[in-house]
Amino acid sequence: MNAWQLDPQLANDSHPLISGGLCDVRLMDDANYPWLILVPRVADACELFDLNANQRRTLIEEITDTENALKDLFAPDKLNVAALGNMVPQLHVHVIARYTSDPAWPSPVWGRAQARPYTPEQLSERSRRLIERLR
Amino acid sequence: MNAWQLDPQLANDSHPLISGGLCDVRLMDDANYPWLILVPRVADACELFDLNANQRRTLIEEITDTENALKDLFAPDKLNVAALGNMVPQLHVHVIARYTSDPAWPSPVWGRAQARPYTPEQLSERSRRLIERLR
Repeated sequence: MNAWQLDPQLANDSHPLISGGLCDVRLMDDANYPWLILVPRVADACELFDLNANQRRTLIEEITDTENALKDLFAPDKLNVAALGNMVPQLHVHVIARYTSDPAWPSPVWGRAQARPYTPEQLSERSRRLIERLR
Repeated sequence: MNAWQLDPQLANDSHPLISGGLCDVRLMDDANYPWLILVPRVADACELFDLNANQRRTLIEEITDTENALKDLFAPDKLNVAALGNMVPQLHVHVIARYTSDPAWPSPVWGRAQARPYTPEQLSERSRRLIERLR
């Protein structure tokens, strides 16, 4: 059995925020949307059925905590939650705050607007607020 | 408090399969992909935090049952799970069997290929197999 290790592509596309009971929570490096990913620290997991029932229960609670944090901090019009994995098979869940004014609305975010990396100042400010709220 | 009622747009885009403990499971009328939606029968729910913890636990188990059914029946390359709701806010979860040869791969399915409605024969055959496996 392999030890869990964060996929290098996910590591490259996002910044660490907190390590929850099951998942590492990370901020996607795209200032177009407040966009988090949750990555369960379970080796070789690609689909929900690769987790056990206890892990799934923790996962959906950690997703919900993240939704609540995004709602409180960013007052979005809608939240989007998705586990796709077509590009990176390691199980990871997107939780994205959406606005009717954002560059992809009403489409899903993938493949729409070019990613807008955070400036160091934006990244530091946004990460600080998220970490404070998610802890 | 309103009684739960299936959103008319979801009703129009999909066909009923089974009624689980929490969710109605329906087949999207698009033969491009084996594509199910799960709709929790909870009035006014739009986000995961609109369910209680017991309902969320049931939801993720019903999603996983659905993933297992799609895997067994259709041997996909990947499963996609998503709760978006940008077009139809009523909480509903997409569970989609994806193939590296399907018309949207590796993108998410939304807004890519034009929907291909099932013929009556295809619909009846696919529904029968799914209902048998999901029951």
